[in-house]
Amino acid sequence: MLKYEIKDFPLDQDNLMLAETLFHNANGYLGVRSNFEEGYPKNMDSIRGEYINGFYDFASSPQAEKLCGLVEEKQTMLNVADTQGIEIYIEGERFSMFEGEVLGRTRTLDMEAGTTLREVLWRSPKGKTVRIEIKRMASFALLPFFLIEYKVTPVDFSGEVKICSTHIGKVMNYFNPNDPRVAGESFEHLLVESIEVNNDVSYISSKTSKSDLCVCSAVKNVFSKEGKTEIVKEDGAVKEEYIGFISQGEVLTLYKYTILCDSVRYPNLSNETKENMEQALSTDINEWYEKQKAYLASFWENCAIDIVGKKDLNEAVHYNLYQLIQSVGKDPFSNITAKGLSGEGYEGHYFWDTEMYMQPFFTLTARDIAKNLIRYRYTILEYAKENARILGHKKGAAYPWRTIMGKECSGFFPAGSAQYHISGDVAYSIVSYYLATKDLELLRGCGAQVLIETARLWMDLGNYYRGKFHINEVTGPDEYTCLVNNNYYTNVLAQYNLRWAVKSFHLLKEAGLISDLIEKTQITEEELKEFEEAADKMYLPYDEETGINPQDDSFLQKKVWDLTTIPEDKKPLLLHYHPMYIYRYQVCKQADTVLAHFILEDAQDLETIRKSFAYYEKVTTHDSSLSTCIYSIVASRLGLEDKAYEYFGESAKLDLFNTHKNTKDGIHTANMGGTYMAIVYGFGGLRIKEEGLFLNPHLPKQWEGYQFRILFEDAKINVKRTQAECRITLLEGSKKNIHVYGKEYCLEKELVIY
Amino acid sequence: MLKYEIKDFPLDQDNLMLAETLFHNANGYLGVRSNFEEGYPKNMDSIRGEYINGFYDFASSPQAEKLCGLVEEKQTMLNVADTQGIEIYIEGERFSMFEGEVLGRTRTLDMEAGTTLREVLWRSPKGKTVRIEIKRMASFALLPFFLIEYKVTPVDFSGEVKICSTHIGKVMNYFNPNDPRVAGESFEHLLVESIEVNNDVSYISSKTSKSDLCVCSAVKNVFSKEGKTEIVKEDGAVKEEYIGFISQGEVLTLYKYTILCDSVRYPNLSNETKENMEQALSTDINEWYEKQKAYLASFWENCAIDIVGKKDLNEAVHYNLYQLIQSVGKDPFSNITAKGLSGEGYEGHYFWDTEMYMQPFFTLTARDIAKNLIRYRYTILEYAKENARILGHKKGAAYPWRTIMGKECSGFFPAGSAQYHISGDVAYSIVSYYLATKDLELLRGCGAQVLIETARLWMDLGNYYRGKFHINEVTGPDEYTCLVNNNYYTNVLAQYNLRWAVKSFHLLKEAGLISDLIEKTQITEEELKEFEEAADKMYLPYDEETGINPQDDSFLQKKVWDLTTIPEDKKPLLLHYHPMYIYRYQVCKQADTVLAHFILEDAQDLETIRKSFAYYEKVTTHDSSLSTCIYSIVASRLGLEDKAYEYFGESAKLDLFNTHKNTKDGIHTANMGGTYMAIVYGFGGLRIKEEGLFLNPHLPKQWEGYQFRILFEDAKINVKRTQAECRITLLEGSKKNIHVYGKEYCLEKELVIY
Repeated sequence: MLKYEIKDFPLDQDNLMLAETLFHNANGYLGVRSNFEEGYPKNMDSIRGEYINGFYDFASSPQAEKLCGLVEEKQTMLNVADTQGIEIYIEGERFSMFEGEVLGRTRTLDMEAGTTLREVLWRSPKGKTVRIEIKRMASFALLPFFLIEYKVTPVDFSGEVKICSTHIGKVMNYFNPNDPRVAGESFEHLLVESIEVNNDVSYISSKTSKSDLCVCSAVKNVFSKEGKTEIVKEDGAVKEEYIGFISQGEVLTLYKYTILCDSVRYPNLSNETKENMEQALSTDINEWYEKQKAYLASFWENCAIDIVGKKDLNEAVHYNLYQLIQSVGKDPFSNITAKGLSGEGYEGHYFWDTEMYMQPFFTLTARDIAKNLIRYRYTILEYAKENARILGHKKGAAYPWRTIMGKECSGFFPAGSAQYHISGDVAYSIVSYYLATKDLELLRGCGAQVLIETARLWMDLGNYYRGKFHINEVTGPDEYTCLVNNNYYTNVLAQYNLRWAVKSFHLLKEAGLISDLIEKTQITEEELKEFEEAADKMYLPYDEETGINPQDDSFLQKKVWDLTTIPEDKKPLLLHYHPMYIYRYQVCKQADTVLAHFILEDAQDLETIRKSFAYYEKVTTHDSSLSTCIYSIVASRLGLEDKAYEYFGESAKLDLFNTHKNTKDGIHTANMGGTYMAIVYGFGGLRIKEEGLFLNPHLPKQWEGYQFRILFEDAKINVKRTQAECRITLLEGSKKNIHVYGKEYCLEKELVIY
Repeated sequence: MLKYEIKDFPLDQDNLMLAETLFHNANGYLGVRSNFEEGYPKNMDSIRGEYINGFYDFASSPQAEKLCGLVEEKQTMLNVADTQGIEIYIEGERFSMFEGEVLGRTRTLDMEAGTTLREVLWRSPKGKTVRIEIKRMASFALLPFFLIEYKVTPVDFSGEVKICSTHIGKVMNYFNPNDPRVAGESFEHLLVESIEVNNDVSYISSKTSKSDLCVCSAVKNVFSKEGKTEIVKEDGAVKEEYIGFISQGEVLTLYKYTILCDSVRYPNLSNETKENMEQALSTDINEWYEKQKAYLASFWENCAIDIVGKKDLNEAVHYNLYQLIQSVGKDPFSNITAKGLSGEGYEGHYFWDTEMYMQPFFTLTARDIAKNLIRYRYTILEYAKENARILGHKKGAAYPWRTIMGKECSGFFPAGSAQYHISGDVAYSIVSYYLATKDLELLRGCGAQVLIETARLWMDLGNYYRGKFHINEVTGPDEYTCLVNNNYYTNVLAQYNLRWAVKSFHLLKEAGLISDLIEKTQITEEELKEFEEAADKMYLPYDEETGINPQDDSFLQKKVWDLTTIPEDKKPLLLHYHPMYIYRYQVCKQADTVLAHFILEDAQDLETIRKSFAYYEKVTTHDSSLSTCIYSIVASRLGLEDKAYEYFGESAKLDLFNTHKNTKDGIHTANMGGTYMAIVYGFGGLRIKEEGLFLNPHLPKQWEGYQFRILFEDAKINVKRTQAECRITLLEGSKKNIHVYGKEYCLEKELVIY
């Protein structure tokens, strides 16, 4: 039973906002925060929102000083409608969790059913008791479809129940007038253009202020028992009122169907919205629940992850993976936002988080989704080229640091556009996908082109100096040091990118599939030679004295900040110190060189990696949620089992335990993928290289066992580690030579190592 | 005759805007752009403004991404009133330079009289001819006083002349709706609070929107001949109409008196405005002209600059010095803005320009003014300390990169707050003042305290690394490379600052004047030792291979940009390339290391300076107006006479020839000071060091001779160089041992070297 349940959850501000995130419903296309249908008291704050992945408006992003090429317009994900509103009146008394008496309350996320449930036993001020059960689902089977099943049962009376269900089109994104940091952002991005009611379905069509996109929301309320109903159009909204007489013990159910369609995917917007609503209504509700279950059954079966002996961690890991499938876009117009579809943090932007933290999970367990993520990057390739021109480059593609539709949104380039590594990350994810699938077709169709254009960027970005290829003025993953020369992570990744641009060319050439690539890129053998030379001569900083790879040319000459002296109220550093002050220290927000040592471990010997890990661990604050999972993986690699386990726990529990204190703004999707990686790449020691598949499964001493399942080439492989054995099973596909614990085996059916 | 005159000046947009700047009237307290009293046609743009030095409002400066400590509110100098308006109707026909026929037109700046003159001979559409002469003066004798003397003479008719003189309080700063870069800035900073008319004097009192400052403008129109007059209050304005009958050949004169007072200097604002107006009115107008002449006579006498044999350059040099005396603040509430009081460019902010480019002129020729500039820095010392805290420092004072009242206004810290050298520049200017004056009292009163607090900043900013004191993550004067480690200029200046903090302590101690300093700074012998050690161990980058001081640790490893390949339409680089792209090149906007080699020439041997000059010359675009004068000085030092002369010419002519194409936004005051320095420090070879006064006067071959006059300790010394001789005359004060052409002499009365 994959359930996450909280009982008697506190009704205070912080916990409600947190639960809005934790229990949100999403399917990768739409997401609905888990707001109370009936609302909170007026003095309480709520981030009430329904979002569509990849649906945005342009918003101005003024620069304090205007400089050439600086971003002055960003994209922002919109709250598109409020179809959550349901108010209940019990014999005239309005139901509220904050009035009368709440006799019991439970919130449950059912990760097999794909639904959330809020159960409340409530006694009204005048003493009438009702049971309220609210089930919600964002359908994986019909992406524009969101359902609320709202059940009311009079427990100790019979009487009139009035239900008021609203559909509001005139909505705005969250802003808090008490928080000067967000107040300036209040803006009506969405303008209601028309409101219609047809066959008791209300349709609200709206248009964005600047991006010229449209959204149509449709709502239909279906009541289980006949009553008196009335539908009223209001300013930017539609309200339906129902009045019925319900007997004691009788269950009154409202099925509230929402369809959200946008013009990005549905060019015939109003027709397609209607069609989707008809489809939703024409299928029995239980069938929708079954489809949901079936989708998730397959999802869980494909990753088959299980931790035995640590219930809370197992639950946390499943919670995290569930959020990934809720968050990931299922079409090439969308990707995975940093907060999924659970909130407005980072404005629905896509970052490198996808490629480096989440895509590996899909590459290993759900290839269609992974392929789609690559296709998204391919659809924005032209914007990446344009971005390279804005940054001054004469050739190549520079993927934007944060974006929705492809244009750069980062307003502070030292910690944004300067993170050139994102182009390397995109390239790396394509190579990873290829190595796991050997899918030449993807390389031919789009992958190799991206590899060539990103390789070209490095050539234009870097320069030879005293015989070595240098890359200056970039920012690595660690945003506590910006605009540096020869960031180790960037350089080693650029080297890999350059080499794989060449390799992909030869792979396609040998397969007779090269013509498209040449036509699209005009790549020549001469240019490929330049790639190879730059890769061979890539400068990778190494310090003899410490025996480590310095994060960049000057990292080691900076001051050391004794992290133990930082008071709690000064954390995270970025909220309490001027960026320039932080830059002046050897202090890292997150894994940077350590991450390089994970993804490209063969670039250095193990002793260097060991020393680097020890060095950087002392100076890393993990103020980024992308950090601890990587430290866990590399600790596993180095046999530092206690550290690996501790970092893993921090990663796994981040959102459920709200350890970064900002889960109210949305989940941390990258970390969720990182949790998975810490198991599979960390404890499991998985690597997929040109030389093949490597496994090195170790068991944390706190566990009885664990299991995961991956796709490799044409095979589906189950890896199970218990205290007694490591059992590797070929579930599907042809036999494989694999490397386990440093030895090569042929996996034909099952391999058991004691 | 020190006059700058243009005849038949073009009446097109660009030239009118340029002339508004070039012929502006200012006295260091107030400045009035040279707008036509009668205005331009509606379709023509004009920056119409009257400014008070140091009078500002706060304006929001939103950051695209909010980070800790980033500036979100700046100060901006305000256009405080429009008292320029005068319209003339000749028998009902309105005078305009753009209608009828302009038979002659001349604009003159008289730098001895301290006035500007516009003379027009105009024939109306109906054929009536008038002579119009408009003299303007910003009084040096009564700082709040601005005068327009407006003369009309009917040439070929007798008839009715109507004059309409306006006084407008409801004004705004310039913005151009067609220029998206400034459109966002349109804001009513000044709100009219009251309008009064008393004894035919109109008073308009206004208050700023946020800074809580007030300004009162007063206007009185005095006509030379009686006529029918009427004063009318309008919305935010007062208008006076005069109608009189003037005979052919008769001169009608309007004396329009303006008084501008602000609450920064005049706490009893309305009374003091009235008193100033009474004072202006009670003195005969010719006496005001005489006072103006006398003030300037003394000014010219004190610097006695003269170039013989090159009229245009001599005129340009005098023009530049005249602008300096027009621009420099005469009280501790103000300083010298980057554009003087001639326009709104850089929003009336004070930069390092003062200390490094303009203060030397005043230190050598007008000590009271120089002392006042130091006092201004002392009055904002507490803000500089606060700024250091904002930047994260536990101690010391970090002078803001750009400011009016003391708080940092730079919105882009990599090219703003990161320019820590400004604190060194302030320290340097105090030491320079001391060396020229031996004024211990100034050190005791404020100078030494600033030296101690700036020295403390370096201690907190830098760190020891492998035995040397490093300063990381700063930006030097050259803004084409930002956030670097060990900028040579910064480090060598910090070293000087640290040493002089110690020296000033000992100087005061030996003089028995130390108690104040200890009380104010709590400085200890131990801390002084730390200063000394850091100075001794200061890391100054030096490259063996090239034999130069690299601009910073990584300058030489960057790409070289062949400046000859940059097309004209891509200049200046900062307007056409993303800053990060520029940072990646060995390209300099301005002198940086070369400037260090001028101000602290003894830190390196001449050979290194020679190689550095040659190296940096190749990579410097001189996109900053602060560059060529320094190149001229160092070229002189190195005996590169042709280069020195060419760079000098570029500096001298910058505004008069509008070579940077932006003089319409205001003059370039720093460059004007730089022109002076290129003569006195460059051709004249002047240095004032602890070891005494050094001169090395060389004559550019294009000249017959030149002269300048300086104050040194108690002496006033005249230096005159002709082809035949170098004549050094002690005009006042005691005899001095001085060094001329590398030899030591005793200057008793006159020294002539052939």
